[in-house]
Amino acid sequence: MESPFAHSVNYVGHSGIVLDEIGVDRVVGHIVVDEYHSQPYGLIHGGVHCTLAETLASTGAACWAIEQGMAGAVGLTNKTDFIKGVTEGVIVGEATPIHCGRSQQIWQVFIRRESDERLLAQSQVRLQNITSTEF
Amino acid sequence: MESPFAHSVNYVGHSGIVLDEIGVDRVVGHIVVDEYHSQPYGLIHGGVHCTLAETLASTGAACWAIEQGMAGAVGLTNKTDFIKGVTEGVIVGEATPIHCGRSQQIWQVFIRRESDERLLAQSQVRLQNITSTEF
Amino acid sequence: MESPFAHSVNYVGHSGIVLDEIGVDRVVGHIVVDEYHSQPYGLIHGGVHCTLAETLASTGAACWAIEQGMAGAVGLTNKTDFIKGVTEGVIVGEATPIHCGRSQQIWQVFIRRESDERLLAQSQVRLQNITSTEF
Amino acid sequence: MESPFAHSVNYVGHSGIVLDEIGVDRVVGHIVVDEYHSQPYGLIHGGVHCTLAETLASTGAACWAIEQGMAGAVGLTNKTDFIKGVTEGVIVGEATPIHCGRSQQIWQVFIRRESDERLLAQSQVRLQNITSTEF
Repeated sequence: MESPFAHSVNYVGHSGIVLDEIGVDRVVGHIVVDEYHSQPYGLIHGGVHCTLAETLASTGAACWAIEQGMAGAVGLTNKTDFIKGVTEGVIVGEATPIHCGRSQQIWQVFIRRESDERLLAQSQVRLQNITSTEF
Repeated sequence: MESPFAHSVNYVGHSGIVLDEIGVDRVVGHIVVDEYHSQPYGLIHGGVHCTLAETLASTGAACWAIEQGMAGAVGLTNKTDFIKGVTEGVIVGEATPIHCGRSQQIWQVFIRRESDERLLAQSQVRLQNITSTEF
Repeated sequence: MESPFAHSVNYVGHSGIVLDEIGVDRVVGHIVVDEYHSQPYGLIHGGVHCTLAETLASTGAACWAIEQGMAGAVGLTNKTDFIKGVTEGVIVGEATPIHCGRSQQIWQVFIRRESDERLLAQSQVRLQNITSTEF
Repeated sequence: MESPFAHSVNYVGHSGIVLDEIGVDRVVGHIVVDEYHSQPYGLIHGGVHCTLAETLASTGAACWAIEQGMAGAVGLTNKTDFIKGVTEGVIVGEATPIHCGRSQQIWQVFIRRESDERLLAQSQVRLQNITSTEF
């Protein structure tokens, strides 16, 4: 029997992502980073940045699509540049739309260290609007 | 006091990544995907693909760099294309080098569904070789 | 009055691209590079690689789409990595499909120096299939 | 004997790029697009957008690097998203820095139609600073 506990916190939850602001113009979230998020060199794993960016961009794109009467949006491409490695502290991601079109959207995400606003990573996510969530 | 349990499994572990083969020419890993990995539509979260790709590519690039007498490699850019959404099953990622140079490497990762080898995502990771792991 | 000469050779022609092989599985083309293609440092302009990749990938994707009864394919994203700069010589690009789907395709392009097959650039182009060429 | 005329206008010139503003914070350029720039469907060739973006970003990055006492910057990766196809008219590209660091820079380029400022393409170019232009 599968433990219900196993899914009480899912992948995004285990990434430590906390959503702070959700909207069609801006989505903000943060992670309290510590050694849990590290790759073997002690720096934050690049996948954490990708996952934070994907989460924020998808949330914003879905909100916009739903506001337009569509069902949502699914990711096509996530391109994340890693700029500065960190070992711990609060990182804050801010997603804003570059393009919201009939069929596709592009959202940009800047991930900064909260303490000094230094840019750590930046990401662009291209998404496809969907008219149904039946897959 | 920080619970030792909290870090007994880290981010990569909680992603469910299992490394099956490690080498300078090829790195393979898999994830048993279920609703834990889902975004709200029930499909695997794009960040899982990014994280699997980043883990495999970085592992291979570090192996190659170390074999050349360097200290390792850190990610510059992760570009992941999402091709087919899945809800559950085993996904297998295979990373192979496109370019291993003096200062940088590029690795490509194909992520397939194990059952029918269908391509689900593909990723390219560009990395910088490093001569020290003191950051 | 617009000079007919002005368009006797178009942008792709002025890039120097010569298509050598066209098919749904592979498209090959080359450019004889010299100082015409240089940026101020004397190295080939990155835009030449992008343009060669875009041309080869689009040609292959259009062929595949037409073979499936669609009208063609248009580019969504071109991601080109520059690996080794050159000043002159023949460069050869080879495009092959990574994914040919109902709605989208992804093609990969390797651009090599003909003389020693050294990898100079590599590109991935994501395209949308189209059912009409009326824009 | 090679015609001197052949190189009186180079690749960037034949792309039709005109630089309007050059600086470490912003580089602007435009192209008067017509059928010369078209792919077979009559739409602007994606390579034109890539080449405009590469030219603007490289120019800005080189200016910044030189101002810091370095020799310049060379492109690592150009990722260009195509958003809206056009057949003719003036397109204007604006490049601004996302990150200017000791070893690398990332510049973003928005390409808009002049007449209505509609976003046609957007690009991100990652570059490596160089301390010498001897290659």
